[in-house]
Amino acid sequence: MQMRQSTITIGSSQREQLIDITPHLSDFIENSGFKTGQLSVYAQGATAAIMVQENWDDSVQNDVVTLLAKLIPRGIWQHDRQDGNGDSHLKAGLVGPSETIPVIQGKAGLSTWQNVFFCEFDGPRKHRHIVLTLIGI
Amino acid sequence: MQMRQSTITIGSSQREQLIDITPHLSDFIENSGFKTGQLSVYAQGATAAIMVQENWDDSVQNDVVTLLAKLIPRGIWQHDRQDGNGDSHLKAGLVGPSETIPVIQGKAGLSTWQNVFFCEFDGPRKHRHIVLTLIGI
Amino acid sequence: MQMRQSTITIGSSQREQLIDITPHLSDFIENSGFKTGQLSVYAQGATAAIMVQENWDDSVQNDVVTLLAKLIPRGIWQHDRQDGNGDSHLKAGLVGPSETIPVIQGKAGLSTWQNVFFCEFDGPRKHRHIVLTLIGI
Repeated sequence: MQMRQSTITIGSSQREQLIDITPHLSDFIENSGFKTGQLSVYAQGATAAIMVQENWDDSVQNDVVTLLAKLIPRGIWQHDRQDGNGDSHLKAGLVGPSETIPVIQGKAGLSTWQNVFFCEFDGPRKHRHIVLTLIGI
Repeated sequence: MQMRQSTITIGSSQREQLIDITPHLSDFIENSGFKTGQLSVYAQGATAAIMVQENWDDSVQNDVVTLLAKLIPRGIWQHDRQDGNGDSHLKAGLVGPSETIPVIQGKAGLSTWQNVFFCEFDGPRKHRHIVLTLIGI
Repeated sequence: MQMRQSTITIGSSQREQLIDITPHLSDFIENSGFKTGQLSVYAQGATAAIMVQENWDDSVQNDVVTLLAKLIPRGIWQHDRQDGNGDSHLKAGLVGPSETIPVIQGKAGLSTWQNVFFCEFDGPRKHRHIVLTLIGI
């Protein structure tokens, strides 16, 4: 059993946005040569998160932004007096920065419609970092 | 340190339902012979998730379905134009498909009232797959 | 690659409260001597959870309690007929008991403003247990 770790860096173009990072994960798994394992995906940044979600088209990604805006409105939080981004922190905390994905037969063990998304809740940002830690055989 | 991986398959009988999968996890841990470790549980399917929740009786499981129906109503999402299951995807994404459980003294390190549930959000389905990846000593 | 496991015990002073446990995690990582790895953090207790959140001051922690009280009100759940804490279980299930954090260059791979919090949803309690499982090299 061995471990590989890598940090990928991406940018975002909107305040709130889901960005598909599955190709980065697939490349990392393939390059390791591991056949069986687990991949931990971790979003650095207290206004960002990781969500596994459908990627048939943009509709579900848009719905996620709409849902979170409805559940967690802007401008009504104690933290807004400081940064004006109280909603961004709450969205990030509720969705969460980590997901752990199985590696099966040398590939990410996602189902057909599951992709892994970086969730931007306080963009746009030039540099967002996601840490991949892979343990496998 | 060694790794074991297995996929369990279950069925669901309702559109939205929590199904206790703890016995499957306990069997898998016991069969490994590992005394200390961690077990990653991953639900395949973009309308399914994993939740750790109380299992004293059905009340909390029913409450989870009620809560999510209240927070994420049916029929108002952009994705509904395609599949009519926009709410299922949003519920799955918010709860999340992965939880990582410790293994302590040869058993799942849950507390007395914690059990691990597969969350069905777009059933009934005959076949739902959950991947278990166990690393231990 | 090696594994370390430890359980930390903390108390809570309020019914709903976020408690920063990052120093415990940092000590555990430093004592292991591992340079690269992953740390799984798991809250035992069906009315508790783990959330990664900002720790600049108390404002976001207060906002988390406010948000969850708004999304999941007290006293309207089926489980309340038994324990009166239906909301506590729902909050715990939605936030979730596990987060997996990378270890980078011998330290927790958090960003500047990310800290790891134990979420109490049914306190005060004298003893709450959090299991740390660390795999590293």
